[in-house]
Amino acid sequence: MALNVAQKLIKDHLVSGTMEPGEEIGLKIDQTLTQDATGTMVMLELEAMGLDYAKTEASAQYVDHNLIQVDSKNPDDHLFLESASKRFGLHFSRPGNGVSHPVHMQRLAKPGKTLLGSDSHTCANGCMGMLAMGAGGIDVAMAISGEPVYIKMPQVFGIKVTGKLPDWVSAKDVIFELLRRYDVKGGVGKIIEFYGPGLKNLSAMDRHVIANMGAELGATTTVFPSDNEIKRFLRTQDREEDWTELIADRNADYDLHDEIDLSTLEPMVAKPSSPGNVVPVTEIEGTPIYQSYIGSSANPGFRDFAIAAEMVKDRAIADGISFDINPTSRQMLTELVQESHIASFLQSGARLHQAGCNGCIGMGQAPATGRNSLRTTPRNFPGRSGTPEDSVYLSGPEVAAASALKGVITDPRKLEFPYPTVKEAKNTKVDEGLLDKPLPVEEARQVEIQKGPNIVSIPNMDELPDKLEVPVLLKVGDNISTDEILAGGARVLPYRSNLPEISKFTFEHVDDSYVKRAKDQGSHAIVGGFNYGQGSSREHAALAPRYLGLRVAIVKDFARIHWQNLVNFGILPLTFKNEKDYDQLEQGEVLSFNDLKDQITQGKDVTVSLKGSNNTILLEHALSPRQQDIIIHGGLINWVKARQS
Amino acid sequence: MALNVAQKLIKDHLVSGTMEPGEEIGLKIDQTLTQDATGTMVMLELEAMGLDYAKTEASAQYVDHNLIQVDSKNPDDHLFLESASKRFGLHFSRPGNGVSHPVHMQRLAKPGKTLLGSDSHTCANGCMGMLAMGAGGIDVAMAISGEPVYIKMPQVFGIKVTGKLPDWVSAKDVIFELLRRYDVKGGVGKIIEFYGPGLKNLSAMDRHVIANMGAELGATTTVFPSDNEIKRFLRTQDREEDWTELIADRNADYDLHDEIDLSTLEPMVAKPSSPGNVVPVTEIEGTPIYQSYIGSSANPGFRDFAIAAEMVKDRAIADGISFDINPTSRQMLTELVQESHIASFLQSGARLHQAGCNGCIGMGQAPATGRNSLRTTPRNFPGRSGTPEDSVYLSGPEVAAASALKGVITDPRKLEFPYPTVKEAKNTKVDEGLLDKPLPVEEARQVEIQKGPNIVSIPNMDELPDKLEVPVLLKVGDNISTDEILAGGARVLPYRSNLPEISKFTFEHVDDSYVKRAKDQGSHAIVGGFNYGQGSSREHAALAPRYLGLRVAIVKDFARIHWQNLVNFGILPLTFKNEKDYDQLEQGEVLSFNDLKDQITQGKDVTVSLKGSNNTILLEHALSPRQQDIIIHGGLINWVKARQS
Repeated sequence: MALNVAQKLIKDHLVSGTMEPGEEIGLKIDQTLTQDATGTMVMLELEAMGLDYAKTEASAQYVDHNLIQVDSKNPDDHLFLESASKRFGLHFSRPGNGVSHPVHMQRLAKPGKTLLGSDSHTCANGCMGMLAMGAGGIDVAMAISGEPVYIKMPQVFGIKVTGKLPDWVSAKDVIFELLRRYDVKGGVGKIIEFYGPGLKNLSAMDRHVIANMGAELGATTTVFPSDNEIKRFLRTQDREEDWTELIADRNADYDLHDEIDLSTLEPMVAKPSSPGNVVPVTEIEGTPIYQSYIGSSANPGFRDFAIAAEMVKDRAIADGISFDINPTSRQMLTELVQESHIASFLQSGARLHQAGCNGCIGMGQAPATGRNSLRTTPRNFPGRSGTPEDSVYLSGPEVAAASALKGVITDPRKLEFPYPTVKEAKNTKVDEGLLDKPLPVEEARQVEIQKGPNIVSIPNMDELPDKLEVPVLLKVGDNISTDEILAGGARVLPYRSNLPEISKFTFEHVDDSYVKRAKDQGSHAIVGGFNYGQGSSREHAALAPRYLGLRVAIVKDFARIHWQNLVNFGILPLTFKNEKDYDQLEQGEVLSFNDLKDQITQGKDVTVSLKGSNNTILLEHALSPRQQDIIIHGGLINWVKARQS
Repeated sequence: MALNVAQKLIKDHLVSGTMEPGEEIGLKIDQTLTQDATGTMVMLELEAMGLDYAKTEASAQYVDHNLIQVDSKNPDDHLFLESASKRFGLHFSRPGNGVSHPVHMQRLAKPGKTLLGSDSHTCANGCMGMLAMGAGGIDVAMAISGEPVYIKMPQVFGIKVTGKLPDWVSAKDVIFELLRRYDVKGGVGKIIEFYGPGLKNLSAMDRHVIANMGAELGATTTVFPSDNEIKRFLRTQDREEDWTELIADRNADYDLHDEIDLSTLEPMVAKPSSPGNVVPVTEIEGTPIYQSYIGSSANPGFRDFAIAAEMVKDRAIADGISFDINPTSRQMLTELVQESHIASFLQSGARLHQAGCNGCIGMGQAPATGRNSLRTTPRNFPGRSGTPEDSVYLSGPEVAAASALKGVITDPRKLEFPYPTVKEAKNTKVDEGLLDKPLPVEEARQVEIQKGPNIVSIPNMDELPDKLEVPVLLKVGDNISTDEILAGGARVLPYRSNLPEISKFTFEHVDDSYVKRAKDQGSHAIVGGFNYGQGSSREHAALAPRYLGLRVAIVKDFARIHWQNLVNFGILPLTFKNEKDYDQLEQGEVLSFNDLKDQITQGKDVTVSLKGSNNTILLEHALSPRQQDIIIHGGLINWVKARQS
């Protein structure tokens, strides 16, 4: 059977399931990527799992998010991650080296491989002929420990590319065109695969731009073939030996089809406050801006900076504009310095920032109140810039530079000068220091993991007891979000690696006595209504209550991701067989479960007795056999630990 | 009479008093400098004073401190400062342009002029043959409004410089030598004046290094002559026409004398946690470091970076070192880029940060817990780096770069390579954009000052009533610090331009009901013991209680700077004639002052009746006639406002 690139990648890594769209499939993971914001918990999970040494072909820990060091918390995290990387046999990229996705592309990406990363833009490396997917931290910890990842087999959405981009139009406009057509949910459940004669006109870094923002379509991931352009790119990184060809079979087909003629595209902008809010730049020309921002993994390439630098060279940006240049890697910054592009930026009036994610994830460069910011970043969700009620527009570097010069959103095609020629960086000097190599296993075992005062190991968690008697410690209504279970934000997030501390915020706005009562009580249950655990996917919303003793959550129904997180951290998720039984379970009621392991493994039904009334209530679980085993072990950490030994 | 440089500068600007050490003298101010951390309040004061247009020859507002934009507060401040600069006829330096002191030196400093700045390192521009002094924000607001500054006539401490610095020894070691000899109080009440044949071996930027850290000796300021080296420096900035010669008369003498032979100096380091804790580097060689940091106004020059870059060129810094490069101005960064020094830094493994103060003032680059940081910054006070219980060593760039290469504090004279030659920047391109020029007065009057939601005008404040009846709202003991009156730190400081908000923190740890009681009560008095208002000089510790209604502070004695701040903000500072009367004044006692203006102006004594007991108590003030007038007007803002109209 003729296969497309996505199907070839899946087939090569399939460890369970069948390749029918919607079916659960297990995939072997070759490479992983973690960044510092999510990586600290991944490292604590690896420690708790008792991992000796990474079982992947290559795993890399990057430090690109939390670069602002106004106290010891972030630098302590950096040292923790460095030492944990040494201990577990990971590559390590130091703060200042750059954003994970382009650095991974430069140093580690290999056609034909799978990559799982604890960052939603991990899909960017789909540009290299990889199956590259974002996932939760514990999924990545599992992958590092040699476990497969389980996903629903996506549909493959083939997009045929023809033609060549006009002057002033760039790869960013390709993904904007898809966002214009399909909006931010258009890719859900799909892998987007690009093919066709137009690909020869898109460089590897152009493809990175497109694959990166596939995340904004909601796609499982995006794949490009590994062709001669990928070979050329790897050669510039002294890694031509890592190239293999990976292209679709001649008669391969796709589940869904569309086509883009590059030559018909024009410069586009996503208006506040959604990446799907795309319009041609002509529609909003003249909108005043206060900030123009170049950088992030959505426009990470040498070309993306060089074109903007050539545009502002020997010119001055408009009065009052903050023109923020955020380089994406140290190697690229060096090239931009050596090719005089950084001098052009500085002389135009730009502010040059450290290489990293920076303002893309709200870590610096927040705009002033009531002012418009224009950015080459991938997302303009409300408040993501750090400024409440912000007004962020997204564009490619050509529109961003043109607008910096004029002080208003500007169609670059109407500038008074011709489209500049951008040459590739001459004499690229590969920066081997971008990624420290893993220690050999014997040396790794000698490494002591360094934990600053705010980094606390995950405590041991019990297996599920066969007989469980627990009170209902909290009863809540419908639509409880993970923000209500455990808030995010600047007050709470600094404790992301300190479970005892972060757990103190659990349910704080729902019932501020919960934490104290849970500590006094130990094991307990929670009762909830419909859509329990909606919203952010943060794992701490399961981990923190588990730390405080939560063993069973009984609700009318669960939000999907939180349900998964409850399973992962060993909290038994049950639903009422009869929703009216919700009324019987008041706070304080003591629940008695007998033969719990048998009940879970022998069917969907679970019976619980109410000690107060001697009534019984019929509940249900939706656990697969693998998940039943995880719950019985007390969560994924214990489950993997058992498999490691 | 033969005069030294300091005396010439003072004589040329003397508007009151006599030049006898210890006497109060008034000095005309030609130039001012404000930075953003202090400047926002200065601009609000200018607004409250009703200033039309700056009366100085040149005043400049820099944005170099609060460059981290994680929400809208800092960028809102930047726009406020930019618009206020336009409104009041000030030069404005945008965020990213660099640190005030070197930028001022490059763009505005003029030999023979006085400079008052709301930053303690303003003295750095003493390198240019200026009388350059740090002061409180309101003193600078006064100077911008055309008022003189009043200081005690300092002694002039002449230091004769001979010889030439050996290889690997730099200007930083000259000031370290003085700190080694005299420690951090050694300059109090003195102007340090350098002279002698060795000066020809110290560049203008070398002199900046030395003058800058005169602040660490506690000196009023430091002065250097304006000689041919200053002429040469101004020529590199396209400002040769601003040069005038200013050298000591042939037979000039000094109040105090010392001598430094440059050829005898060696590389030195200030150990934690005082700049006066100086030892030769040989004494602490081998001490492990985790961070090496190049930058700040204490080593701001092209040479300071270039020598470090030449040292690390084609070499790699030691494993695990964070090598932080903090450029001091955009112009200098451009030069360092063009001369390949930035490329050398990056290729060695350095992190390149935005031009600005950054970690020098705890805004980024905080070290990890329990690790040693080595920095070319001027200060290593405990916790200043942002990390509690930090361990910061100070050095010149040669020791910092050598130690980055080795991972331990290293004597650069023992490196395996010879002392590199550093060439001056070729083709310096003066960056006119470093400083926006003031608007002409007619245009300035059209400018609307832009205030983000966290920037609130200072409300009108009453004159002192002639009959004042106020309760004692709070009674405190001895040694109450300004930190207890109004804390600093990250929780409070973001409200520095929002008096209604910041005042809510007043006395919070002394009596958490004070704020509410003051708001209910209005005008009131406070009673205190010895050393009231010790510690930090922050003006908000007077302004916030004044906003809440404090009119009279009656204590056993005052700390000097807080006393001055009370006067400036119209709070009458009184001491007990008989300290035992402290016991009579309990909280709740109502005090009645009659004929208050006459009492203040006709002598030192002030009588108050106690409404409870009908007793009277005799108090004293220590106000000069000018200060009496200020208090009667209700503070400096009202006083200046009356003079403006």
